[in-house]
Amino acid sequence: MNPTDVLDRISIVLSRTSHPGNIGSAARAMKTMGLSRLVLVSPKCFPDPEADTLASGASDILVSARVVDSLDAALADFVFSLAVSARSRDLGPPPMLAREGAGALLQEAAAGKEVALVFGHETSGLSNDEVQRCHGAVMIAADPGFSSLNLAAAVQVLCYELRLAAYAGAPPLPAGITPFVSPPATHREQEGFYRHLEQVMVASGFLDPAQPKRLLPKLRRMFGRARLERDEVNILRGVLTAVEAWRK
Amino acid sequence: MNPTDVLDRISIVLSRTSHPGNIGSAARAMKTMGLSRLVLVSPKCFPDPEADTLASGASDILVSARVVDSLDAALADFVFSLAVSARSRDLGPPPMLAREGAGALLQEAAAGKEVALVFGHETSGLSNDEVQRCHGAVMIAADPGFSSLNLAAAVQVLCYELRLAAYAGAPPLPAGITPFVSPPATHREQEGFYRHLEQVMVASGFLDPAQPKRLLPKLRRMFGRARLERDEVNILRGVLTAVEAWRK
Repeated sequence: MNPTDVLDRISIVLSRTSHPGNIGSAARAMKTMGLSRLVLVSPKCFPDPEADTLASGASDILVSARVVDSLDAALADFVFSLAVSARSRDLGPPPMLAREGAGALLQEAAAGKEVALVFGHETSGLSNDEVQRCHGAVMIAADPGFSSLNLAAAVQVLCYELRLAAYAGAPPLPAGITPFVSPPATHREQEGFYRHLEQVMVASGFLDPAQPKRLLPKLRRMFGRARLERDEVNILRGVLTAVEAWRK
Repeated sequence: MNPTDVLDRISIVLSRTSHPGNIGSAARAMKTMGLSRLVLVSPKCFPDPEADTLASGASDILVSARVVDSLDAALADFVFSLAVSARSRDLGPPPMLAREGAGALLQEAAAGKEVALVFGHETSGLSNDEVQRCHGAVMIAADPGFSSLNLAAAVQVLCYELRLAAYAGAPPLPAGITPFVSPPATHREQEGFYRHLEQVMVASGFLDPAQPKRLLPKLRRMFGRARLERDEVNILRGVLTAVEAWRK
């Protein structure tokens, strides 16, 4: 299945959100990662201009959001759901880490199932009753001394993991971004450059072939570490050629 | 080196941030992931009450933030820096993905070096000049059709990756959270349960041993999929024992 279709099977459910701005920010976070299906359980204020402002280009997600009055209604037609939880629970499913939880949701969605990831109230999180209505729990392993992620930040991290999982770690990049601009230099190109460099160093009097010290090996080590690209070798040789011509 | 010490060697640099609220949200995002060193390059308004409000418990990071007036001043004492960039650049280093970039920063920090991760302006990002002052670029592979992460959301994702990298994917969980509440049932415990279940099914008349159909294999398949824990086997056998006693 196409990764886009897989991500379309994953809904984000926000339960009892207090601040409409957080709903907007969550929609923006979802859209940056290619998710679009939002379900709101009893939001305090929605629709609301602040949600629209913070959605910042993702207001289509707000417009198509489904608003319901209970978590049961939100989850009624899903076959798998995970609750996002940062707290210890006496009952309820043991938590998965975010990456593992994203993998679990993806696996179900890729098998054609409709799945949901449920986030609770900004301050109090999900109730035990809400967590127990899900098939499992997932947590972002924050610093135990300060684990309070903003709601939209938590949505961002989990949607990011979902996107990476959907594209098996290699999501498409924006048009024009080429991770490697120039092919790496071949051994032959690199050695040609080193010979040229040595000629210039000798001709200029900087390197005495009778007493070469460790100059060339040191330069080889430095250029080797930089993993020269073909374009760069061409530029460096251009400099050497110019210096030779200038000298004559 | 202790993961906490490694994270302490990683600074977050925010260049020319317009909205003080974003500085506060970024500080909160950092603190949730155990990072604490913030450098601000020519912030438009700082200090500012909105930064304090949105830091929400992370104002210690704002108090100790270093404020400088150029990226060169911010980076002066670092030996490795990565620029966060979402755009295509004609020049400048080819981008790494977030996970890879976090790994690169971690490797340097774990070797005792001071390193920095640099974020640009909310709307325009980092200039080409700023990117070229860093050793490499890193990008969050957002949806090419809508790649505009909120600044603090981008800080959250990258700090999350840094934390996972620092703890090799297994960060400590808050006190009281035990990922697996009960040890899994052994084969012997599981088989004891199946025998007990069969006895009750036969005794109750639900299962005819002469015509067992596929009832037991189907139940084995279901319980097998649930990967029973020891506590759960004990509960299930308790139910069976109670049913047997009730019947007598």
